[in-house]
Amino acid sequence: MLVVQKYGGTSVGNVEKIKNVAKRVSSNLRNGDKVVVVVSAMGGETDKLVGYAGEISKTPPKREMDVLLSSGERVTSSLLAMALESMGHEAISLTGRQAGIKTNNVHTTARIESIDTQVLKKNLNENKVIIVAGFQGITENNEVSTLGRGGSDLSAVAIAGAINADVCEIYTDVDGIYTTDPRIEPKARKLEKISYDEMLEFASMGAKVLQNRSVELAKKMNVKLVTRSSFNNNEGTLIVKEEEIMEEALVSGIALDKNQARVTLIGISDKPGIAAQIFERLSEENLNVDMIIQNVGIYGEANLSFTIAQNELEHAKRIMDELHPAKNIEFDDSIVKVSVIGVGMKSHSGVASSAFSALAKDGINIQMISTSEIKVSMVIEAKYGELAVRTLHKVYNLQD
Amino acid sequence: MLVVQKYGGTSVGNVEKIKNVAKRVSSNLRNGDKVVVVVSAMGGETDKLVGYAGEISKTPPKREMDVLLSSGERVTSSLLAMALESMGHEAISLTGRQAGIKTNNVHTTARIESIDTQVLKKNLNENKVIIVAGFQGITENNEVSTLGRGGSDLSAVAIAGAINADVCEIYTDVDGIYTTDPRIEPKARKLEKISYDEMLEFASMGAKVLQNRSVELAKKMNVKLVTRSSFNNNEGTLIVKEEEIMEEALVSGIALDKNQARVTLIGISDKPGIAAQIFERLSEENLNVDMIIQNVGIYGEANLSFTIAQNELEHAKRIMDELHPAKNIEFDDSIVKVSVIGVGMKSHSGVASSAFSALAKDGINIQMISTSEIKVSMVIEAKYGELAVRTLHKVYNLQD
Repeated sequence: MLVVQKYGGTSVGNVEKIKNVAKRVSSNLRNGDKVVVVVSAMGGETDKLVGYAGEISKTPPKREMDVLLSSGERVTSSLLAMALESMGHEAISLTGRQAGIKTNNVHTTARIESIDTQVLKKNLNENKVIIVAGFQGITENNEVSTLGRGGSDLSAVAIAGAINADVCEIYTDVDGIYTTDPRIEPKARKLEKISYDEMLEFASMGAKVLQNRSVELAKKMNVKLVTRSSFNNNEGTLIVKEEEIMEEALVSGIALDKNQARVTLIGISDKPGIAAQIFERLSEENLNVDMIIQNVGIYGEANLSFTIAQNELEHAKRIMDELHPAKNIEFDDSIVKVSVIGVGMKSHSGVASSAFSALAKDGINIQMISTSEIKVSMVIEAKYGELAVRTLHKVYNLQD
Repeated sequence: MLVVQKYGGTSVGNVEKIKNVAKRVSSNLRNGDKVVVVVSAMGGETDKLVGYAGEISKTPPKREMDVLLSSGERVTSSLLAMALESMGHEAISLTGRQAGIKTNNVHTTARIESIDTQVLKKNLNENKVIIVAGFQGITENNEVSTLGRGGSDLSAVAIAGAINADVCEIYTDVDGIYTTDPRIEPKARKLEKISYDEMLEFASMGAKVLQNRSVELAKKMNVKLVTRSSFNNNEGTLIVKEEEIMEEALVSGIALDKNQARVTLIGISDKPGIAAQIFERLSEENLNVDMIIQNVGIYGEANLSFTIAQNELEHAKRIMDELHPAKNIEFDDSIVKVSVIGVGMKSHSGVASSAFSALAKDGINIQMISTSEIKVSMVIEAKYGELAVRTLHKVYNLQD
């Protein structure tokens, strides 16, 4: 098998952990696998470097940030190569540049544009295990670039796609994707398989295991993803195309997003263009709007609600004060969003209504509802968030 | 003026010191100088990385050591670029590769083969201050290489030579080159100027300011060197061609090398080939021999003495036990080498004899003597080392 493995900062946090990663890679190699490993910087290193930059300048040039931040992954990649060599394997570390990862010119949040697989393939053909410094690439001007948050996952997925790997394993400190947060519902169950689209919903709901960009890229390049823990040998969760999941569960899991705040505009003039004006302005100021709901009113007036991240509420207030788009404006940061996720919804009706009636039985008022083909999201009062998760987890028979 | 400045690890040891370096560079820029800065890793960083490698493998692959060790200078170069930008200067950091430093393929002790100055010149023409990550280059196979001990000095000198800089300033934590170690002779005087050849003698005697390789390269490329402190504004010591020193001192300084051990072979057969055999073997085992003295004996036998570094004495003993080249072999590690250095000796006689008679007056027995055009070295008992330095410092009127 041709395997790409990615180890995050906690998995390579010190020399001892790097040696453990080497043992894990070594067992793959002894099984006859060909392996490309992608590594992050040692846990804490990137924060340290960001701290240095912050002490020097409030607005450090992004090009220089990339030179600075790309150094951490180089350290890990060479140390892991040494560890594998010392175990008798032929190993070679590659920087983003050497691994052929070409990006656009947007420093600190570059996008991978292509991967020149020549060096990767040459070394694989020579039966070497390759360790790629994650999170980084090179621009057409030969400048170092970094890929932003979750960048090493992106490196791994892109490489797996480019060399047509059989699987791309993302190692973190958790076992995989759960039906819900086990800290909220101890009976949460680890999912064996899940579709890309479901994973995207989980990820956007704050599941820290995988960033959306990586899942989207995996979907696009049809890379079979596995998320699992580097600290045990438990099977992880496989993330694949919907078609590859034989028996789809009706609902795969329940997600709780606590980082939400609601803005409700009461009595806005029901004319075209008002909503557009509001959301254009929010977007110009880089406020990320999540749910949007508008009810057409009977007297030519409408109520509009939207949710944003909690720490952006003050910013939104300033914009609303300025635009003054409605008679009354309500701001509420004691809300949460609870979501029922499952590709099975596509072919089954009644999923949403059983959620509504279950919450009603618990006396939980639903403030906003938004649905997609594979998701029902509900905004409720924050204090009911965890109760709602447990209730829904039971309603859809997700218990272990 | 086109100036190359090199700052070592102690000068960029933390963010505060990096900011101070930025102020120093800024004052050059405000004076209208064009500046290329070469930086080392932050003090302690390289040792930390070497430590990591040591925990992982006793013989880490040298290619991987280079990937590992080259990361530290990148960090410093980007941080200094940020600091200069925040002071309003246009700055750009360059890695060894980006600065066009091409080396041979000998990892961890690579030699610079050429410098492609295109990127350096382009950025200088755009009036940017350039910060180059020292100690590193790139091989013809596109691999990162490092230059070994004192590598950042080499980077600076090579760049200064390649872009034809007016001066190459090497900043450390000492003011310059002294007539002798001020801890031994408080009246030691800082030298204003000194020739490359004298500097080479001082450096090989353990003056830590500059490595021999950098001085040799500066001599070869005719780069005007200055060594000075980054912690004050004192003038440093200028290191130039002999012809540029108008009034040569008879003697420039006295050096003491404590890291010496003596091996004396008594009664070796006075046939050709014996000495060759000994020194070939020592060289095969990477033992660096310093002084060699042989007296032809009257009965067809000879006595041969040589000195090596103290920590290599045990190794030398093992080799001598094996070769058994003489009837008696003496090993002595309680010796030192004291040297009188000065280009003026070339044109003046009597320098050596006044050294001998001065030491004789102090009751110091000279065990070995070796002379070159600009140096007289004497091996004496270790306990007399510092007395000898003070005596000679006075004899040649070097006092402040």
